[in-house]
Amino acid sequence: MDEFERIARWLSPLADGEPGAYGLKDDAAVLAPEPGYRLVVTTDLIAAGVHFFADDDPALVARRLLRVNLSDLAAMGATPRGYLLGLALPRATDESWLARFASGLKADQEAFDIGLVGGDMIAVDGPLTLMLTALGQVRPGEELSRAGARPGDVVFVSGTVGDAALGLRALEGGLAGLDGEARDILIGRFRLPRPRLELGRCLAGVASAAIDVSDGLVADLAHICACSHVAAVVEAQDLALSEAGKAALLADPALLELALTGGDDYEILFAAPSSSAPRVEALARELGLRLTPIGRFSEGEGVEVRDPQGRPIHLARPGYRHF
Amino acid sequence: MDEFERIARWLSPLADGEPGAYGLKDDAAVLAPEPGYRLVVTTDLIAAGVHFFADDDPALVARRLLRVNLSDLAAMGATPRGYLLGLALPRATDESWLARFASGLKADQEAFDIGLVGGDMIAVDGPLTLMLTALGQVRPGEELSRAGARPGDVVFVSGTVGDAALGLRALEGGLAGLDGEARDILIGRFRLPRPRLELGRCLAGVASAAIDVSDGLVADLAHICACSHVAAVVEAQDLALSEAGKAALLADPALLELALTGGDDYEILFAAPSSSAPRVEALARELGLRLTPIGRFSEGEGVEVRDPQGRPIHLARPGYRHF
Repeated sequence: MDEFERIARWLSPLADGEPGAYGLKDDAAVLAPEPGYRLVVTTDLIAAGVHFFADDDPALVARRLLRVNLSDLAAMGATPRGYLLGLALPRATDESWLARFASGLKADQEAFDIGLVGGDMIAVDGPLTLMLTALGQVRPGEELSRAGARPGDVVFVSGTVGDAALGLRALEGGLAGLDGEARDILIGRFRLPRPRLELGRCLAGVASAAIDVSDGLVADLAHICACSHVAAVVEAQDLALSEAGKAALLADPALLELALTGGDDYEILFAAPSSSAPRVEALARELGLRLTPIGRFSEGEGVEVRDPQGRPIHLARPGYRHF
Repeated sequence: MDEFERIARWLSPLADGEPGAYGLKDDAAVLAPEPGYRLVVTTDLIAAGVHFFADDDPALVARRLLRVNLSDLAAMGATPRGYLLGLALPRATDESWLARFASGLKADQEAFDIGLVGGDMIAVDGPLTLMLTALGQVRPGEELSRAGARPGDVVFVSGTVGDAALGLRALEGGLAGLDGEARDILIGRFRLPRPRLELGRCLAGVASAAIDVSDGLVADLAHICACSHVAAVVEAQDLALSEAGKAALLADPALLELALTGGDDYEILFAAPSSSAPRVEALARELGLRLTPIGRFSEGEGVEVRDPQGRPIHLARPGYRHF
């Protein structure tokens, strides 16, 4: 099959519910935020060998790529509207790979109520490289940003952190002491993030700044600090760990650094004034989602993590960086 | 430099005029079409070794990528609003490459009055792969599409066709008989397309269907035919050729097929009822742009090219396809 046949067979069905996508047959898609909303747009690029393994299940690769972008929309307080997809496929890619990839997208399109609105597909002599641009909408004034944290605000994080990095470590053959069930939970958190879209939408008027945890808790908190011109302290004993994460750290306490600095959790890390704590607690109950205070912002710059005795913990590698 | 430093140094300055881009420091960008407009979005993926040469001037690679996407907006009748960029860079990419690349984008941002609103950058063990998503806006009802051509409509094309494919042939060492100036003109057309944005905006209410010539005149006309459920005939002697293109075909008449089927001209190919011919002529004068009638649509399917004697010309390779 050539690129047109492949797009028609595997991708066009994913655009069925989107009239403005013209069945992926036109030069561009036409859509619009609903009246009174602004458009939110984000893009992520992933490559085999860097962000996933070339022999990973294509359905999971697809769902993960989509969810990572939806997580960026969540961190802006936006509701997803659609997405565009770019596929640079190694020449040997077969139809069964594309079929699985499309089936993963279809499953998540239904889960998140969005459709494909455009894309491009090329053949390359290189690793599989995928790019996704997600479009969402938000009411003016309800956008979350990284830039509003103030000294005295509390550092909150949703769900649990460190799971995805521990899961990746398990996939790479580590965490030998952990039981199978805990390993599976951690690996599942790495493979299939859960974008916190509902939380993001509810944080308007509550959070003073927000980001999703992709580079790692410390690195992403440092992004908020840099954009907001504040410092932050995280109390290691308050870190929101899952039961599986606790088991891993109990078996090897040195994994604390991985939990603090590993990426890919796609939880929402946010700042809120301490006066908003009751609203945050109410939100946690309403959403059935842990929202844990793990530290505090102050005047200054940078992020410090403290042990239970209040001593700074030295981190060798604050967060994932390319190059 | 790591990815954050590289984005801050080379890409963030390109987002200076776009407050909704948050200096490329946030999870996503926020923007909106002006009230009363719809959003138009398109994406293109290019790779070294497929769409350009790895040692091409990075500034030209950047401008070409941007212009190719702007051409898709032009073919929808849209006005550009901004763009997102994904760069998968080979690990050996140096800062001077990025500096040149950014300088090309800066030049074209000024030329087309748009800014960078978001993006992503990764390092890969593979060829340089670039993806650009362009955002534009159009008034509802003024969108051009591929689907509205009717039997009896005239096939028009803007500017001249075949130049880019002939330019690529010259770059590859062909067209030995051609003088240096003609070669330079053709190569320039390949390297730096001119998106027909003004024409696209003016075609609302005039054109019944439109597409930009990227896969080749015959292949792109076939796309209009397939989407509009019509057939088309092109008269080879009416083909809009440049002086340089004519000189190339005079030296080697077999190049006619390349002019008909080669891609990358980024002219607008459109359908219009014959009653609109005076409006098309007026538009050509107003814009100072050739708009040439080259054939006609009819009932049926497929594209036929006829020689001056009315005989069908057999084409070995109707248009560029990947895979």
